[in-house]
Amino acid sequence: MTNKKEITAGIIIIGNEVLSGRTKDINTSTLAKWLNSLGIEVKEVRIVPDDETAIIHTVNFLRERFTYIFTTGGIGPTHDDITAETISKAFDIEYGFHKEAYSILEKYYKPGEFNEGRQKMAKMPTTAKLILNPTSGAPGFYVENVFCLPGVPSILQSMIGGLNNILIGGDPILNITISLRTVESEIAKAIAEIQDKNNDVDIGSYPFFRAGKLGVSIVLRSSSKKKLEICKSDILKFVKSKNIEIVEED
Amino acid sequence: MTNKKEITAGIIIIGNEVLSGRTKDINTSTLAKWLNSLGIEVKEVRIVPDDETAIIHTVNFLRERFTYIFTTGGIGPTHDDITAETISKAFDIEYGFHKEAYSILEKYYKPGEFNEGRQKMAKMPTTAKLILNPTSGAPGFYVENVFCLPGVPSILQSMIGGLNNILIGGDPILNITISLRTVESEIAKAIAEIQDKNNDVDIGSYPFFRAGKLGVSIVLRSSSKKKLEICKSDILKFVKSKNIEIVEED
Repeated sequence: MTNKKEITAGIIIIGNEVLSGRTKDINTSTLAKWLNSLGIEVKEVRIVPDDETAIIHTVNFLRERFTYIFTTGGIGPTHDDITAETISKAFDIEYGFHKEAYSILEKYYKPGEFNEGRQKMAKMPTTAKLILNPTSGAPGFYVENVFCLPGVPSILQSMIGGLNNILIGGDPILNITISLRTVESEIAKAIAEIQDKNNDVDIGSYPFFRAGKLGVSIVLRSSSKKKLEICKSDILKFVKSKNIEIVEED
Repeated sequence: MTNKKEITAGIIIIGNEVLSGRTKDINTSTLAKWLNSLGIEVKEVRIVPDDETAIIHTVNFLRERFTYIFTTGGIGPTHDDITAETISKAFDIEYGFHKEAYSILEKYYKPGEFNEGRQKMAKMPTTAKLILNPTSGAPGFYVENVFCLPGVPSILQSMIGGLNNILIGGDPILNITISLRTVESEIAKAIAEIQDKNNDVDIGSYPFFRAGKLGVSIVLRSSSKKKLEICKSDILKFVKSKNIEIVEED
């Protein structure tokens, strides 16, 4: 809505451990904030099991719809790490040792330690491009618009910076948060009217409980700083007219 | 794989705040653990924006595929809360004041406080069944196999217990976690062989960093206690033979 030429992304979280509730996904938040800063808007996230059919279907469906796709998880050495082989199948590219990845991993490990399990991490679509891993050696990779990252959050975080010059973003999506000491039902009508008036700003309303007190955070998002400021001043005008306390503004 | 008659679920997280990375979704984990305890397996999660078309498409697609669908978010009083109206459209049911919900909310608020914003929370598919809300009054609702819950985690958590007698589950999915002082590549081959031998148990392998040390958690999941125990003893036999330290077992 806010970007004239909209650059979009989809995220695919691969892993039974997230679907079972054992692991809470925090990679979506990391990726979304980073992508927003590049002017890329996340349009959909799907969490799918370690299942070849589900992954192939999801990748092939979403990669046609969004500018970029990011997958997380399933690129380690164990039997349940099937992302690399599955992406090969999704793109119909040979799955095998990637020369450059093999060479990186061979140098990374001490002589004699580059065992069969570790060698598996050099297997991927053979024509993929690599995403370097400054934390633990094993690279991610990308094929066309599909970028495959690991599931361990700290490793993923260390790798995404390497993509800043590869992704082509749009205007960064800016946001302003105004936290109010009120409840949603008291402001719903006015905020709806302000939203109608400010079509190019996306206004969200989120109740919170902090230090035992209720409040509402109003979040404004737009790629236009000017439109964001106009919308903010509309909100502040209303807030002042109703004597609502502003708890925080950033 | 483990359930003979498999009872499945899909989760739809509705909210721009999750897609923008501002809010980390923890409802998936809450719902998945609770559903597992009822013998219901979460097969897919989708996070979609506050967008009518996206929500209708996702709800109508997934409700045909899984036994139960749970949506979270978008049932509050503000302009960006569009779940109730959208579900009405998805099912082609009249959207309007739900008699019972209206009566609950009217009693919940002090005289004079049941304002327009709050009244909106009584609007939903008029023939929906209610999901009671012991925390903040405003009920969730369900239509056929689609259950609509709020996005605020503490409120959602207080409401799901009310569904225990409504959902029909399968055999509860049991799990055992064995945490080892090793790295994945050292055990990958053996675990793959144990997985091949134990087809009805789902074995996951998850590296962790704890107190500065690396380790791997092996998670076994199955609805059969007996098969789980056989698989566990295979793992322990291998672990013992390689003198791998067991950090934790539960």
